[in-house]
Amino acid sequence: MKIRIGILGYGNLGRGVECAIKQNPDMELAAVFTRRDPKTVSILTPGVPVCLVSEAEKWTDKIDVMILCGGSATDLPVQTPAYAKLFNVVDSFDTHAHIPEHFARVDAAAKESGKLGIISVGWDPGLFSLNRMYANAVLPDGKDYTFWGKGVSQGHSDAIRRVEGVKDAKQYTIPVESALEAVRGGQAPDLTTREKHTRECFVVLEEGADAAKVEAAIKTMPDYFADYDTTVHFISEEELKRDHSGIPHGGFVLRSGHTGWDGQTKHVIEYSLKLESNPEFTSSVIVAYARAAYRLAKEGQSGCRTVFDIAPAYLSALSGEELRKTML
Amino acid sequence: MKIRIGILGYGNLGRGVECAIKQNPDMELAAVFTRRDPKTVSILTPGVPVCLVSEAEKWTDKIDVMILCGGSATDLPVQTPAYAKLFNVVDSFDTHAHIPEHFARVDAAAKESGKLGIISVGWDPGLFSLNRMYANAVLPDGKDYTFWGKGVSQGHSDAIRRVEGVKDAKQYTIPVESALEAVRGGQAPDLTTREKHTRECFVVLEEGADAAKVEAAIKTMPDYFADYDTTVHFISEEELKRDHSGIPHGGFVLRSGHTGWDGQTKHVIEYSLKLESNPEFTSSVIVAYARAAYRLAKEGQSGCRTVFDIAPAYLSALSGEELRKTML
Repeated sequence: MKIRIGILGYGNLGRGVECAIKQNPDMELAAVFTRRDPKTVSILTPGVPVCLVSEAEKWTDKIDVMILCGGSATDLPVQTPAYAKLFNVVDSFDTHAHIPEHFARVDAAAKESGKLGIISVGWDPGLFSLNRMYANAVLPDGKDYTFWGKGVSQGHSDAIRRVEGVKDAKQYTIPVESALEAVRGGQAPDLTTREKHTRECFVVLEEGADAAKVEAAIKTMPDYFADYDTTVHFISEEELKRDHSGIPHGGFVLRSGHTGWDGQTKHVIEYSLKLESNPEFTSSVIVAYARAAYRLAKEGQSGCRTVFDIAPAYLSALSGEELRKTML
Repeated sequence: MKIRIGILGYGNLGRGVECAIKQNPDMELAAVFTRRDPKTVSILTPGVPVCLVSEAEKWTDKIDVMILCGGSATDLPVQTPAYAKLFNVVDSFDTHAHIPEHFARVDAAAKESGKLGIISVGWDPGLFSLNRMYANAVLPDGKDYTFWGKGVSQGHSDAIRRVEGVKDAKQYTIPVESALEAVRGGQAPDLTTREKHTRECFVVLEEGADAAKVEAAIKTMPDYFADYDTTVHFISEEELKRDHSGIPHGGFVLRSGHTGWDGQTKHVIEYSLKLESNPEFTSSVIVAYARAAYRLAKEGQSGCRTVFDIAPAYLSALSGEELRKTML
């Protein structure tokens, strides 16, 4: 019997989850839940129902794991604790500063219902967090670095779109190669925000907008751009569509540390991702953890978990024996 | 109360474990066990006894985890099952092909004694295995690559030393940069042995030995060198000592894979290590897993485990709450 997955929220992430399920023969998509009129939502998998979110509670015995594909700002803080009362759930809550309180709420809900919830799954938080943690455990005397990009930042693109005179925009976060090289070389530099990343913006102006004014407004925007070296390119709507419609991302997690009786020996651990589609890759991580949620729940476990709490073997369709034989 | 660690076997790895314990304030070295005359073995940690291996069984209530620092060829296949009857144990058994039978023997011994054993800990097997496994779980449609080096291969150095006319030698395994770049670029190439690594040998000749004959003997040696592009440099004993006495190593684990409804989207996951000392780094991984062995045993678990079976949080001295707050 396959693991029956529900998808709640059918945007880029939901569609990514749908595609990832297709790649995992031990899983099947049971249903998609949406806040929109289900008749207006067409999904990729033939024969799978699209339902209103309000019907989800009728599906508790037909879904093993519900994957919550809403946003971290307003959806997941409410949805994950709510659905953890009905289903085993996995989310990709990524507001790092609010993870502890989100964890507490999901944990309470899931313990009450006897369900299992896994939060903050993806690549950061997620695979990057794992690599930070493993590297810290192995090299207690060291220094961490996380670089993001090259990739599209949705939040920064949105911020540009809110500037007066901007019709559309896409922002790329780009790691500074020389900073990365210094870290790789084991120099353990202290790096300011400006020294780690640059920001490159592709902007389509509204008709008659003042380019110089828009550029200044972007470059001086606090939090988003003021602390970075920012480049602004004005392009046409066609160019934006043609050259910048992808959602690539990625990044680097490094730890540079010392061992030896006097800490005289240097080591560098590096993990990196080069992703053509941020939501599709995030979805693939989520689906692997949905397998873990299913198995942990089957063992009778309940409450909230993060990637730190889950033994790697739970993610794999292979048995322990197969894993030891082929991957150890 | 600190986790009390025993070290069995005091070579490069044992000394590395001793240094790593010093970096972890929740641990202490209880004793070192050796097959040599303990009076001839001087360790770094003041006040810690060096004992004969035969005395180990008197220490069962004074040691929480025994770290077995012997070799994989003849020591560990015997030692790990034997000591798992007395102690929670961690080893670095690295003969990939024999891991399944080693696992079975340690599992049987540890289940009988109620102890916990973790085998094949280090970086390959170990951290590299973890990365292969995570990447496979996340990208089921993809291709794996492992490159080793640049680093010293002890086995290949030994093989050269067995050639007639060779006084001493050091062999470096070097990944082929262009092959690495092709994998990173997502080209998913099929690579032969020769295309992935080259071998560089630094050889000190016996007086009067025939350099050409030695070089030919090395380059045509089956299994070790015949399938590789091998370079042989003849140097003096002083040069070998001055320039090649370190034991650096490292390598790369990559998985290149596809997502999307038609598998149209490419991703590359890369993990790499640059290590100035192979045994010191391996030891640091082992010590983190010794913490896990201690905790799992405290929970009442017994039997054999590998890195696949252990939730990452068990490796860290930080609490779940601290981990979620600082590393997720």
